[in-house]
Amino acid sequence: MTNTLNCIGRSIPRVGAREKVTGTALFSADIELNAPLILKAFRSDRPHAEIVSIAVEKALAIEGVAAVFTARDVPGKNLTGIIVKDQPVLATDKVRCIGDPVALVAAETEAAAERALKAIEVVYRDLPAVFDPEKAMSEDTPRVHAKGNVMTTRAIRRGDPEEAFARCKSVIEKTYRTTFVEHNYIEPDAGAGFVDSDGTLVIYASTQNPHYDHKDVVTVLGLADEKVRIIQAATGGGFGSKLDLNVQGFIGLALYHLKRPVRYVYSREEAYLATAKRHPLVMRMKTGADENGRLLAMQATIICDTGAYASYGPAVANRAPVHATGPYEIETVDIVSYGVYTNNPFCGAMRGFGTPQIAFAHESQIDLHAEDLGLDPLAIRLLNAQRVGSTTATGQMLSASVGIGDCLSAIRPHYEGVRNLAAAAPPAPYKKRGVGIGAMWYGIGNTGVQNPSTARVEMSLDGAVTLFTGCADIGQGSSTVLSQIAAEVLGLEAQDIRLVAADTKYTTNAGATSASRQTYISGNAIKEAAEKLAEVLKTEAVNKLKVAKSALVFDGGGVAVCEKPDQRVAFADLARRAHSKGIALSWQGFFDPETVPLDPQTGQGVPYATYAFAAQLALVSVDVLTGEVAVEKIVAAHDVGKAVHPENVIGQICGGVAMGLGFALMEEFEPGKTVSMKDYHIPTCADMPEIVPIIVESPEPSGPFGAKGVGEPALIPTAPAVLNAIADALGTRIYALPANLERVLAASIAAGHFKLTI
Amino acid sequence: MTNTLNCIGRSIPRVGAREKVTGTALFSADIELNAPLILKAFRSDRPHAEIVSIAVEKALAIEGVAAVFTARDVPGKNLTGIIVKDQPVLATDKVRCIGDPVALVAAETEAAAERALKAIEVVYRDLPAVFDPEKAMSEDTPRVHAKGNVMTTRAIRRGDPEEAFARCKSVIEKTYRTTFVEHNYIEPDAGAGFVDSDGTLVIYASTQNPHYDHKDVVTVLGLADEKVRIIQAATGGGFGSKLDLNVQGFIGLALYHLKRPVRYVYSREEAYLATAKRHPLVMRMKTGADENGRLLAMQATIICDTGAYASYGPAVANRAPVHATGPYEIETVDIVSYGVYTNNPFCGAMRGFGTPQIAFAHESQIDLHAEDLGLDPLAIRLLNAQRVGSTTATGQMLSASVGIGDCLSAIRPHYEGVRNLAAAAPPAPYKKRGVGIGAMWYGIGNTGVQNPSTARVEMSLDGAVTLFTGCADIGQGSSTVLSQIAAEVLGLEAQDIRLVAADTKYTTNAGATSASRQTYISGNAIKEAAEKLAEVLKTEAVNKLKVAKSALVFDGGGVAVCEKPDQRVAFADLARRAHSKGIALSWQGFFDPETVPLDPQTGQGVPYATYAFAAQLALVSVDVLTGEVAVEKIVAAHDVGKAVHPENVIGQICGGVAMGLGFALMEEFEPGKTVSMKDYHIPTCADMPEIVPIIVESPEPSGPFGAKGVGEPALIPTAPAVLNAIADALGTRIYALPANLERVLAASIAAGHFKLTI
Repeated sequence: MTNTLNCIGRSIPRVGAREKVTGTALFSADIELNAPLILKAFRSDRPHAEIVSIAVEKALAIEGVAAVFTARDVPGKNLTGIIVKDQPVLATDKVRCIGDPVALVAAETEAAAERALKAIEVVYRDLPAVFDPEKAMSEDTPRVHAKGNVMTTRAIRRGDPEEAFARCKSVIEKTYRTTFVEHNYIEPDAGAGFVDSDGTLVIYASTQNPHYDHKDVVTVLGLADEKVRIIQAATGGGFGSKLDLNVQGFIGLALYHLKRPVRYVYSREEAYLATAKRHPLVMRMKTGADENGRLLAMQATIICDTGAYASYGPAVANRAPVHATGPYEIETVDIVSYGVYTNNPFCGAMRGFGTPQIAFAHESQIDLHAEDLGLDPLAIRLLNAQRVGSTTATGQMLSASVGIGDCLSAIRPHYEGVRNLAAAAPPAPYKKRGVGIGAMWYGIGNTGVQNPSTARVEMSLDGAVTLFTGCADIGQGSSTVLSQIAAEVLGLEAQDIRLVAADTKYTTNAGATSASRQTYISGNAIKEAAEKLAEVLKTEAVNKLKVAKSALVFDGGGVAVCEKPDQRVAFADLARRAHSKGIALSWQGFFDPETVPLDPQTGQGVPYATYAFAAQLALVSVDVLTGEVAVEKIVAAHDVGKAVHPENVIGQICGGVAMGLGFALMEEFEPGKTVSMKDYHIPTCADMPEIVPIIVESPEPSGPFGAKGVGEPALIPTAPAVLNAIADALGTRIYALPANLERVLAASIAAGHFKLTI
Repeated sequence: MTNTLNCIGRSIPRVGAREKVTGTALFSADIELNAPLILKAFRSDRPHAEIVSIAVEKALAIEGVAAVFTARDVPGKNLTGIIVKDQPVLATDKVRCIGDPVALVAAETEAAAERALKAIEVVYRDLPAVFDPEKAMSEDTPRVHAKGNVMTTRAIRRGDPEEAFARCKSVIEKTYRTTFVEHNYIEPDAGAGFVDSDGTLVIYASTQNPHYDHKDVVTVLGLADEKVRIIQAATGGGFGSKLDLNVQGFIGLALYHLKRPVRYVYSREEAYLATAKRHPLVMRMKTGADENGRLLAMQATIICDTGAYASYGPAVANRAPVHATGPYEIETVDIVSYGVYTNNPFCGAMRGFGTPQIAFAHESQIDLHAEDLGLDPLAIRLLNAQRVGSTTATGQMLSASVGIGDCLSAIRPHYEGVRNLAAAAPPAPYKKRGVGIGAMWYGIGNTGVQNPSTARVEMSLDGAVTLFTGCADIGQGSSTVLSQIAAEVLGLEAQDIRLVAADTKYTTNAGATSASRQTYISGNAIKEAAEKLAEVLKTEAVNKLKVAKSALVFDGGGVAVCEKPDQRVAFADLARRAHSKGIALSWQGFFDPETVPLDPQTGQGVPYATYAFAAQLALVSVDVLTGEVAVEKIVAAHDVGKAVHPENVIGQICGGVAMGLGFALMEEFEPGKTVSMKDYHIPTCADMPEIVPIIVESPEPSGPFGAKGVGEPALIPTAPAVLNAIADALGTRIYALPANLERVLAASIAAGHFKLTI
């Protein structure tokens, strides 16, 4: 009878936090196994080569070496990949990038495994390689895969660009570039496994999607579904790369042949060498605005270098053009995007699927229009911001929960303050302050394809509630948020919900922990399941308490008459009543967002059922002599629909800002050069600005309690805001990420802040 | 993309019809068992007596007798009853009616069992008995049960009767009486059983509710839920009496002790002696109408003789007063009803739960008002008929699907014709024709208490769909109708749906086959389950066919793009895709109608979520010399919401009219006298009139495809219509059912149609 929420919106202790803080959480490296064999992969040092021969005899002769596997030992289909099956577990006829696995060693010790790797002799015949995606698109370059190098094309077309550009007063055309980025999760990829008494291969893994892993592993091994069980071990971050089959296939292969416990834990160097990177994008973007600053047209060409394998490249090549307009109304668009194979490291999912890259482009463009037309950067964004009733580039009418206006309005109170600070005396004569805004929108879930989640909520006869979900909590907090949703429906505390998660034996598929989708999609599936159980319980309570169902409320493990807590019946009693009558106490839920696939020619459709929005404001000071950029303050306003766990949302925002700073200023993975973190800079505590997180709640009607998502959006506006602030400080603009010392210094020199005369 | 229905509304071949017609259906008497012991009960020949002693030694000494059980052999709680636990499986200290079971014999042959019954010696001490329910209510009469004879009281009060009656021009006060009625299902009660390899007692029974049976049997035997399995055998009718635990407890008791196959098949005589009857009601009813015929007030006192045990008596004593106004608006009501124990045979559920009785009263009253005020019987009904927005006696506002006006309008085209025929020359000088109308409303499902159904729909990997429902088809056609609902959702034909029904091991509870509830309630649960499976399948199809979910249609075992049947994917393919990803293919549904329990003082509440309505028109000719009544024609208009299977609806209407004729004209069970069908007349083919069935569809928004129910409504208006027609023919009225030869002749004489002078 009350509409107030009990669990939702409360920052309760996180599920699993105690275990992680006290060190009792079992990561894949910690799973207790009896004398596991250590696995290690022999990897290619060539970017493109035929494999002429592989000699393993010397390796096998080494003491403690149990086996060496090559492609011919793969019993099933030696091709993996969730979207495109193009990546062998072990290379067959050729290698396509440095790091491609060629052989797998199983040995009693790390040392024996290392020795075996050195004893393996592979004869290659080098092939011409291609590293530039634009060159890779032409006909006369080496083919990375037989079908050609253009993996994905996506066009989005609405209106007549020629006519629209003719009406524009301001037309800006620029090319933006980003680079390879490493995920740098705190736990490198790892897994372990054993063969169960019934012959099932049990694989623990640090993973974002146990059910997808399962599908790939059974295919690779040619086993029946029930003969492989994937369990997500405690996972120290993923950011997209743990969507790929990293160690799972190796562990499965070794278990299949050896039937002994095995373990594979990547070193940081191996994680750098062997796992997916963020796609470098080349974005040629032309936009036009009328004299008031209203955006009328966009033309864009986007090239995504997916490296040697597809991984989640198609998702990136689809999502980037869909998001190219930014959170703005632009009636006329002509956008085309290509996903291209090269012999670079393969690129996959990384927090944002191309959106962080494209946001850098569209947020630079809008600032350039503001400058061109003499408009304020905040005002031009508010003028163009999407609202309820806006139509997107794919022809989707946004019908609710369009919070970009609210996010921009939320940073406004801070805007004048930081602008005044930037205009006042700088902290040192050789420093210049600047202010920048970055805005974004982000479609929740996969792009225009099926994207369901299922869940089960079960009450046992003692009244305890267990939530069964396939959802992998990789540190983002889904176990907490999803427990809160089940608890809210059943009037319990989140810690009352027993959780069985991310184990393919006991849970059904919740889809991947990616695309910021679990709160919205799995949350809805869980809410539905819990609601069915709630209905069963209330129905039993009606009979016992003799009041209308509408007069009943959940009351801490029981059902009571509203405002008469003494008229109450406990869950255990209701459960026994239902059970004795043959009424089920285990209920499933299903949710799949309402989307419409994009038309192959025009890209028109409904790629997502709902979008998150955000705007961030950055204050930076730039050392014009060294190129050093200090980010002093970030104000981050994020429309999450409803914050199920506000501190978790703030945690995501702060973490996203940190990752965004790295993307903006320092992170660059150079294939063949970058080996480990000594070569690769990520922000430390010392780099962190003051962060002012602002939660905006524009409720999504189709979301669980109005919630959408925040995982990726947290990161996306930061780099654009910082880059716009640097441009504001220097009076000149940088068109490539990262804006590292060299690029900032070059810009400073180009802007005439000082002259280098040697 | 199409709104037309495929399965719903089509009169497809009935599920199980072929088996029944060809004789392959397995009734309880046909279940193949290895040398089953034959069970027979020793029953009381006293209406009320203490049991002084039971001597079974002589019986046990007879060759072929395996065991004789008495109350002391009942291992659990020796009290059964779904609503009130007051009925022992075997009498303990006393017997309360003729037919009460005292001992149970198990023998190798029928003959040995019969001999054993004769050899059992019971010494009784007779107790004073009470047979008149009105006397039974006074304090100084023998108590049938220790808690007193008034089992149930229900008051329904709205407004100020004194004030309302003061405004009436026409006030009618009469007392109506009905008698005991026997169900006379074609298959007398029967069951059989064996002990399974894991020790489970497997009981086949002719039953309306296997899950309720299960609950009672485990309680009687003190066993864990999983140790008893009830399976509904093919069942030859029930009409309410097979809601009681008739043979199931005996079979359970014998299996528990003997662990050998057993069988118990009642003879017709035993079914007459031992099973529930329809409650005889005494209904004192006072109603008032203004000069226009608008009903303003009702006062009523209803006494229901439930005999020795409650059975479904509380349901009857609750339902009759709720329905006392008939389908008419009456603002002011003061109705009280009593369910009373006597030493008569116990009375239980019988097609209508008291509504056929109360309809006789309210339909007589409204005709008396019409006569009093010089109004037409059809016009006065149309004037007072409930409509959308009407408030019922329990204060419920009817918001949709109120088809009584439509039913009355539907019989109107026939009304003038039969009136003219009645007014014309009679078929013989000593015959008089008359026309009468009977109308009714009927709340679907149990009265203001929880009333859920659950179901499961599962797809196997070959694409086949199985419906798991606890619903017992007792001949009314639920297996057909529920298959149609599942098939409609999934675009299949009903015969494509594999059915697992009414087996407590494999199905969850669908509630009882009673109260005309299965189409509405189980139909909704099944629709929900099928819709979840449909959603899973369409979600998988989106990914395969790359179109929006809204563009997909089910296409005979597959999913296709609307209007592009070549773009299709088969269920088997979709099932394998979902399964390999760990997405469930088995989905449950749950439905519980939205009701509000009735207030104990005022009876205000929402007893049912929806109501069926009907009006029947009868043309009779009465032989004034013999009292013989020939029903020539019945026009029967029934609002069923939506006819899922029109021929089944017509079948129910025709069957209902037949049963209604028996209730109107001939059926009377006299306790202690009526032994078998030789003493008890039911209509034969020769008695049947021309029937004009009219299906009215006033869709119920909360019903599956708009459906409500028709099982009991089919019967209810017939007796009132026939009695009103007799009154029209004779010019005088009969106030007690049945209107048998004696009563009609007496009325004929009283009306002066002829004089008997001997």
